[in-house]
Amino acid sequence: MRKIVTEYRVPYADTDQMGVVYYGNYMALFERARNELMRACGYTYKQCEAEGFMLPVVHAEADYKSPAKYDDLLEISAWMQLQKGVRIEIACEVRRKGEEAVLAKGYTRHVFVSTEDFRPCPPPQRFLDSLVEDEISKG
Amino acid sequence: MRKIVTEYRVPYADTDQMGVVYYGNYMALFERARNELMRACGYTYKQCEAEGFMLPVVHAEADYKSPAKYDDLLEISAWMQLQKGVRIEIACEVRRKGEEAVLAKGYTRHVFVSTEDFRPCPPPQRFLDSLVEDEISKG
Amino acid sequence: MRKIVTEYRVPYADTDQMGVVYYGNYMALFERARNELMRACGYTYKQCEAEGFMLPVVHAEADYKSPAKYDDLLEISAWMQLQKGVRIEIACEVRRKGEEAVLAKGYTRHVFVSTEDFRPCPPPQRFLDSLVEDEISKG
Amino acid sequence: MRKIVTEYRVPYADTDQMGVVYYGNYMALFERARNELMRACGYTYKQCEAEGFMLPVVHAEADYKSPAKYDDLLEISAWMQLQKGVRIEIACEVRRKGEEAVLAKGYTRHVFVSTEDFRPCPPPQRFLDSLVEDEISKG
Repeated sequence: MRKIVTEYRVPYADTDQMGVVYYGNYMALFERARNELMRACGYTYKQCEAEGFMLPVVHAEADYKSPAKYDDLLEISAWMQLQKGVRIEIACEVRRKGEEAVLAKGYTRHVFVSTEDFRPCPPPQRFLDSLVEDEISKG
Repeated sequence: MRKIVTEYRVPYADTDQMGVVYYGNYMALFERARNELMRACGYTYKQCEAEGFMLPVVHAEADYKSPAKYDDLLEISAWMQLQKGVRIEIACEVRRKGEEAVLAKGYTRHVFVSTEDFRPCPPPQRFLDSLVEDEISKG
Repeated sequence: MRKIVTEYRVPYADTDQMGVVYYGNYMALFERARNELMRACGYTYKQCEAEGFMLPVVHAEADYKSPAKYDDLLEISAWMQLQKGVRIEIACEVRRKGEEAVLAKGYTRHVFVSTEDFRPCPPPQRFLDSLVEDEISKG
Repeated sequence: MRKIVTEYRVPYADTDQMGVVYYGNYMALFERARNELMRACGYTYKQCEAEGFMLPVVHAEADYKSPAKYDDLLEISAWMQLQKGVRIEIACEVRRKGEEAVLAKGYTRHVFVSTEDFRPCPPPQRFLDSLVEDEISKG
């Protein structure tokens, strides 16, 4: 399965008075990694919307193992852990760069919907193609 | 079980370009409801910290049913769904004021830790007392 | 000049590791007060957009006197300090409820633009009417 | 004067329903550039705090010329525009990578304070040294 890693430097803005990254802010970190996963597939989420598809989040969850802190340089990895019908799940892990320990992990579940009527619809063909191409390229 | 409801008006700041509240921002809504739940118990989280306890989030999850939008007046309810050893789980539901439909629901799992050594510790006696008092007051 | 005051409870989400509300988060507080000012004028920003007008921010500034902290119950006041042509300026002040001292103050400058072509346009007549009504009601 | 440029990819999280980056989120962009400016000086803000100094924001302002949008790759530049006594001002400009047009610009004013008593104090010697070194290296 295709997997990407993207870097992120933690600003003061993300911390809370416990001196760690606020738990809710990991959701935007997950989003950053999802964006880069789609870019790596040659089909950015921006293109996705331009072609009439949206991917709203229907479920999100995260496990917090150890806190990320101000000025940490994080590595956020993402990969698709499920694609079934109109649904897709993207898993994410957050680490400090150069370290093995997972600080937080989780996943988001999305449904492909049409931007016209906001109804569920099959993933765009181009997206499925990019996945197939990926499997071929790894063969 | 004690349950509170708190109101929240959605600002532009919480929305994203899909025209709905960004999925990550619900985590702060859940936090607002948790804060009010503790206040209703007569033991605010601020007091909790002042007495040497913290309640970091170790797990969070949310199901998104229908989007909240700009200027919506929301009602966020919260109640404790589990307390076992050093762990506690607070469940939340988000609705538009005066409507039955749940827009989003989820929960957060917390562990009581000491502010001195950041190690898990039993919940403060005063917190447990407030829970007992609640049960008595409902008896 | 019409002036409104709106309350806001500071969540952990707004704080940073200095133990105070992050300076950037005051911009959303200012927005909350602007929203309530327009509502008090009988013309919410939501209606404003529905009728084809937007009010993007072209300038914002804030002076930070004393920090707001977690769980503070704030009062944010807002009033129009200037309206000239297509421009409008809304001033804001942030205090702890029941206290005189201003924690932060600032203002935002906006330009009325049409949602059709994103070009500057005169404020909607209904908005100007509400201002006139206000002056009459105070006469 | 030393000047740095740092890149930033705009996530959905930063946008609002106008389809642009929310005005308040530029403050965190400015902070990211300030952090990198200090890192380039060989004296990160993290070290600054570790040595007993803090740099709270006492004033911030921004002019918004043209909106940044989702998935834009931004370049944020920062440089010191003033240092006088305990005060320092850092200016910032935001552009799309590879474009000349400034999307937003502004500055923040800070006061050096001691982490012990939160009172204003002269900037740390090491910070002033790094500025002198910079001037020498450019001589």
